[in-house]
Amino acid sequence: MRIDNREINELRKIHMETNFTKHPEGSVLISVGDTKVICNASIEDRVPPFLRGQGKGWITAEYAMLPRATESRNIRESSKGKVSGRTMEIQRLIGRSLRAVVDLDKIGERTVWIDCDVIQADGGTRTASITGAFVAMVHAFGKLLENKTIKEFPINNYLAATSVGILPNGTEILDLCYKEDSEAKVDLNIVMNGSREFVEIQGTGEEDTFTYDELNKMLKLADDGLKEIFEIQRVAVGKWHEYLLKNQQAVQEEE
Amino acid sequence: MRIDNREINELRKIHMETNFTKHPEGSVLISVGDTKVICNASIEDRVPPFLRGQGKGWITAEYAMLPRATESRNIRESSKGKVSGRTMEIQRLIGRSLRAVVDLDKIGERTVWIDCDVIQADGGTRTASITGAFVAMVHAFGKLLENKTIKEFPINNYLAATSVGILPNGTEILDLCYKEDSEAKVDLNIVMNGSREFVEIQGTGEEDTFTYDELNKMLKLADDGLKEIFEIQRVAVGKWHEYLLKNQQAVQEEE
Amino acid sequence: MRIDNREINELRKIHMETNFTKHPEGSVLISVGDTKVICNASIEDRVPPFLRGQGKGWITAEYAMLPRATESRNIRESSKGKVSGRTMEIQRLIGRSLRAVVDLDKIGERTVWIDCDVIQADGGTRTASITGAFVAMVHAFGKLLENKTIKEFPINNYLAATSVGILPNGTEILDLCYKEDSEAKVDLNIVMNGSREFVEIQGTGEEDTFTYDELNKMLKLADDGLKEIFEIQRVAVGKWHEYLLKNQQAVQEEE
Amino acid sequence: MRIDNREINELRKIHMETNFTKHPEGSVLISVGDTKVICNASIEDRVPPFLRGQGKGWITAEYAMLPRATESRNIRESSKGKVSGRTMEIQRLIGRSLRAVVDLDKIGERTVWIDCDVIQADGGTRTASITGAFVAMVHAFGKLLENKTIKEFPINNYLAATSVGILPNGTEILDLCYKEDSEAKVDLNIVMNGSREFVEIQGTGEEDTFTYDELNKMLKLADDGLKEIFEIQRVAVGKWHEYLLKNQQAVQEEE
Amino acid sequence: MRIDNREINELRKIHMETNFTKHPEGSVLISVGDTKVICNASIEDRVPPFLRGQGKGWITAEYAMLPRATESRNIRESSKGKVSGRTMEIQRLIGRSLRAVVDLDKIGERTVWIDCDVIQADGGTRTASITGAFVAMVHAFGKLLENKTIKEFPINNYLAATSVGILPNGTEILDLCYKEDSEAKVDLNIVMNGSREFVEIQGTGEEDTFTYDELNKMLKLADDGLKEIFEIQRVAVGKWHEYLLKNQQAVQEEE
Amino acid sequence: MRIDNREINELRKIHMETNFTKHPEGSVLISVGDTKVICNASIEDRVPPFLRGQGKGWITAEYAMLPRATESRNIRESSKGKVSGRTMEIQRLIGRSLRAVVDLDKIGERTVWIDCDVIQADGGTRTASITGAFVAMVHAFGKLLENKTIKEFPINNYLAATSVGILPNGTEILDLCYKEDSEAKVDLNIVMNGSREFVEIQGTGEEDTFTYDELNKMLKLADDGLKEIFEIQRVAVGKWHEYLLKNQQAVQEEE
Repeated sequence: MRIDNREINELRKIHMETNFTKHPEGSVLISVGDTKVICNASIEDRVPPFLRGQGKGWITAEYAMLPRATESRNIRESSKGKVSGRTMEIQRLIGRSLRAVVDLDKIGERTVWIDCDVIQADGGTRTASITGAFVAMVHAFGKLLENKTIKEFPINNYLAATSVGILPNGTEILDLCYKEDSEAKVDLNIVMNGSREFVEIQGTGEEDTFTYDELNKMLKLADDGLKEIFEIQRVAVGKWHEYLLKNQQAVQEEE
Repeated sequence: MRIDNREINELRKIHMETNFTKHPEGSVLISVGDTKVICNASIEDRVPPFLRGQGKGWITAEYAMLPRATESRNIRESSKGKVSGRTMEIQRLIGRSLRAVVDLDKIGERTVWIDCDVIQADGGTRTASITGAFVAMVHAFGKLLENKTIKEFPINNYLAATSVGILPNGTEILDLCYKEDSEAKVDLNIVMNGSREFVEIQGTGEEDTFTYDELNKMLKLADDGLKEIFEIQRVAVGKWHEYLLKNQQAVQEEE
Repeated sequence: MRIDNREINELRKIHMETNFTKHPEGSVLISVGDTKVICNASIEDRVPPFLRGQGKGWITAEYAMLPRATESRNIRESSKGKVSGRTMEIQRLIGRSLRAVVDLDKIGERTVWIDCDVIQADGGTRTASITGAFVAMVHAFGKLLENKTIKEFPINNYLAATSVGILPNGTEILDLCYKEDSEAKVDLNIVMNGSREFVEIQGTGEEDTFTYDELNKMLKLADDGLKEIFEIQRVAVGKWHEYLLKNQQAVQEEE
Repeated sequence: MRIDNREINELRKIHMETNFTKHPEGSVLISVGDTKVICNASIEDRVPPFLRGQGKGWITAEYAMLPRATESRNIRESSKGKVSGRTMEIQRLIGRSLRAVVDLDKIGERTVWIDCDVIQADGGTRTASITGAFVAMVHAFGKLLENKTIKEFPINNYLAATSVGILPNGTEILDLCYKEDSEAKVDLNIVMNGSREFVEIQGTGEEDTFTYDELNKMLKLADDGLKEIFEIQRVAVGKWHEYLLKNQQAVQEEE
Repeated sequence: MRIDNREINELRKIHMETNFTKHPEGSVLISVGDTKVICNASIEDRVPPFLRGQGKGWITAEYAMLPRATESRNIRESSKGKVSGRTMEIQRLIGRSLRAVVDLDKIGERTVWIDCDVIQADGGTRTASITGAFVAMVHAFGKLLENKTIKEFPINNYLAATSVGILPNGTEILDLCYKEDSEAKVDLNIVMNGSREFVEIQGTGEEDTFTYDELNKMLKLADDGLKEIFEIQRVAVGKWHEYLLKNQQAVQEEE
Repeated sequence: MRIDNREINELRKIHMETNFTKHPEGSVLISVGDTKVICNASIEDRVPPFLRGQGKGWITAEYAMLPRATESRNIRESSKGKVSGRTMEIQRLIGRSLRAVVDLDKIGERTVWIDCDVIQADGGTRTASITGAFVAMVHAFGKLLENKTIKEFPINNYLAATSVGILPNGTEILDLCYKEDSEAKVDLNIVMNGSREFVEIQGTGEEDTFTYDELNKMLKLADDGLKEIFEIQRVAVGKWHEYLLKNQQAVQEEE
């Protein structure tokens, strides 16, 4: 039995509040159990220097925690004057993942800034960030389409993430809460698109290892979990669902 | 008439949600109109080096904005690697103000960390932060008293803040929203305790000046506004109101 | 009786040496009692990015102390690699105050850099900096007018600052020296223009508060003190006094 | 056919020169094709603060490139004043991987510093770093055992890494050189122990995705490649091979 | 003829005002022509970590320029957040030079902080700093001797510095002003003790070279110039001259 | 007798491997005894801002040590976030020295980046860096000449460096190894061109001094040592020797 009485293949309760704050083009408060992340998508009308003059856009992500998002208070990274390795790793992951489902040629010389700010942490903040940021980005591009800044909806597919792991007793489980995560012998984060293809796999067995069989069991759990998450995203993206679907089909036909 | 149809002496709607996140000893989400700030109070069991061995505590504050709390996105201070002058000024103001109503000898060698994170900004973020942080701090000390970490309730009085200013047409107004603030010829932040004594006055007439008469009119508006705010705090502090009242009376008798 | 035998409404001896160093357009060594600050005004022929192309200028200030300006040596901010909150607060105050008496449209796309370097500190370094920096700026603009870089003298009024406070025994006093400042229960910095209108009021009662009556007594002391300081500035600005007077009258007639 | 005429399952030529520099406890120059990395292992007689007093050790890694290790010169990270996200990600990966095969309780309160400095880069610098750093660490611990600083050989198993990927034409390949890596639609880094269990899997399909089948083909290629790499390591660790073998068997029996 | 009508072997006018500011243990304002440097010596009752527990002291120097010490304004190093290579080179030179004439065993576990702050620059700021800092240090140690903090006067000899160079026309000259320095084909800084032995020689012929003969002519000029400077220091050190003389003789007898 | 059995005027064995790594325009691994430095020269097709539009080039140098180049491990400067004073001093010296033998007008608006990375340190790393960097720069310019990027070979003369010093027993010696350097009472670095004129002299007698006679003896030793080093460089520059010789003669005829 799991610490919070869930089945081994049971997700925590996921909720997404869209239009959470008023300024961003897309704004989502996602809760995955007790993990809560504000995911904002902002559009800037220029691209970083390495892309200028190519007519295409860019998507970049930043991730942070409120100092007291965690059980004991963390020092604010702005006070330390530098961003930790963990933070950099996570924001690179979020940015890379989102770029995998967007046709950057369709957004013009614009940058989408994704800000994921964790206000309460209970495990899985990076995967919740990806799942929520995707929805925020959908609404931001929707707004651009509505006001005719862009001509085509540029997202090709759904995108979401979850974690799987192995408990000390050897059981593979889905969607680890903080307590489980801190005890798990393996921790695997899976990012998939709506066609359930892999976008990222990051698995680590710190001070432990895992076999090919264990990997396969975890991948199966993740696949099932993500199927459910895509259903929840489907509601949260609202009318943009059909645009996503159409693009997804168009891409599949091309291949 | 004001931009949002308020009377010149009318506050925006103020709401405080206590226990907003689960980890901090005190956690408040304050809204003042469209300005929303998460105010968390965390207790750390040690003091900064300059206070060690004196048996007394310390209160310090940090203030930040989510990048997209504002109309256009701001660069994250952790990315810039340094905290701006504006941020420093505000967090010094919050810390100083809160220390004015706490008997630091009664909290032992502990530091109270106040984190004010603005998730949506529409003017008056520093005064909203003070008003909300006070309530978060009350609940944090309440928790310490309940679990017998401290013996006496260490706060002597209520504490709140608001802004007043002068519109370009010469009218003095209470509680400026962002639009008003950006046009005002004078901006005055007033921090008061529950006995309506001044804790801080910060007035600036950038590219303009103000007279003694104008100052007096603004002080009157602030005094009236803060009277209302103390009523709202009274509800938000719950059962700790009577502790505050008792301490306030004890201090007045001493004087 | 005060620690240095002054009356409660008595300023310390103020002296200003103009043309103190040879390179700056304006250079003043101001002494207020034992507080000594080198105030240099430098003209740069461009403005910060946010002002480019608008045909107007900017005034910005930097403030620092020599490491041994104080009783015990302070670590140099260049060694620490960052500027303290106190320093930022002071330099923002100096810049804002000076901008309040200058018509930035008359100086073209130029930046005035005000450097206030405290070589000996005995309380009131920020107010001495403002008083001295004003005179340095007058001479710098005078030089620009003489060599016909600008067409009109751009300063509209005198500008000076002083501090007032309340001793532990409840007496309000003018122009606090370091000893008094460190014991005072309230510390109020007042910046006024030559028409004795407020430019800035910054009052703080750290670990204490002050009443409306006390505020009024302090404002009266400051007003009297500043009247004397403007007389001293009048001598230090030399022939530019009549330009200041003429502009001051022109502004009053407009209103 | 591959760009350098290799078979799809063919590793580049790997060479390791042990005792490459004279000061470190373990020093290896590893070449994997044209990729050359100096891997040094240094022993420090203390641990980071979070481990003090627990009687166990720590392994940490730093990774850097000479500015001209690459085709065009990179700015030195010491000049930029900060370490990039890519660097942090790699050094966290190296440290985590090495810790997975070491019994930290057996090394006492010591830190092993692994320095991987790339002097020539042609793809796969992070996996070459892990493979070379492992050998450097073996020799460093061997030295500690010989001079009786530690009592037992603390490494439980071999450890090595390689990369696999998918070419634009859909072919899965082993050990990507820089040219291949920059064109590949998927890049997967695999770290395994000598029993061919997974220690880390990091797979990313930037601007592309990969299927379960493709993942399996890549895992097979990696597994075969690592089998060969372990043979090369076996020679490079010299007499310490039997210690590794004994520990590996002991661990397996325990399980 | 030189630009300022001096002979080729003529020093600029040197003046030293002792007790320049009130807080430091030793404080000197040195002028060498138009170059003006405040040299303060502060005593701290502890040493840097690498010297703790050895019963001996340390001397360290910091050097800075006011932003407008020069013809055009320089950015403050505290604003840039880092100290330039030139500054570091100079402060290392000052510290090393002063340590050469002090018996660090006689000062106990104390650090002497030398602060050289250039308020007006016209060439030769580093050599003026050394000459002035020596006198400030003499007075600081004098004060320690008078209040019996130390038992013996710890300085063994005089110490001063000057510059020599070669004009574009090939003439060797003494004590270069800024104009001469910026045109000179060689610039040589010489630090000597009162026995006219070398403490430091730093010569550079950027974009040019110099011969053995030219070196010898410059060394002769420096030697003659320093002889005069030691006479000026003799007056500035006041009653401590005889202590210096006695220690100098004691050292010579030992040899 | 010297610690490593050398004569007092005997250099350590010097070896230079050219084309050490494949990417840089010039790449040399120099060994001077156990001191080993990778010297890379990279050509960038632009100059720093202060030189733009003048049609001439620039040469700049960076110097670093691998963390474990030394007996005990040093903290990486990229981790500390700043470059030490020692490093800055050395890289300024290398850059200045190389610029003394290059006609910057002949290289167009290009920057030569010299990277000296010490992989093993045993004294004399800065002089070895200069000697090796010169050869790397020769090959880099040779390549530019061969591919007709530049029209004339821009180097006017050979350039090399060595160190001399005085042992505690008073003996002057050539080319100090680390052990000797750490005990020497004087340390003098000499940079000369192939005509044996001085480019730089940096001599320091920390906690000691040296006389004119001792200086002369050291200069003689350095001169003899550099004569030998120029012979070794002659071989390492290969066919570019005759270009160097021709330019050297042309310069001498001009004078």
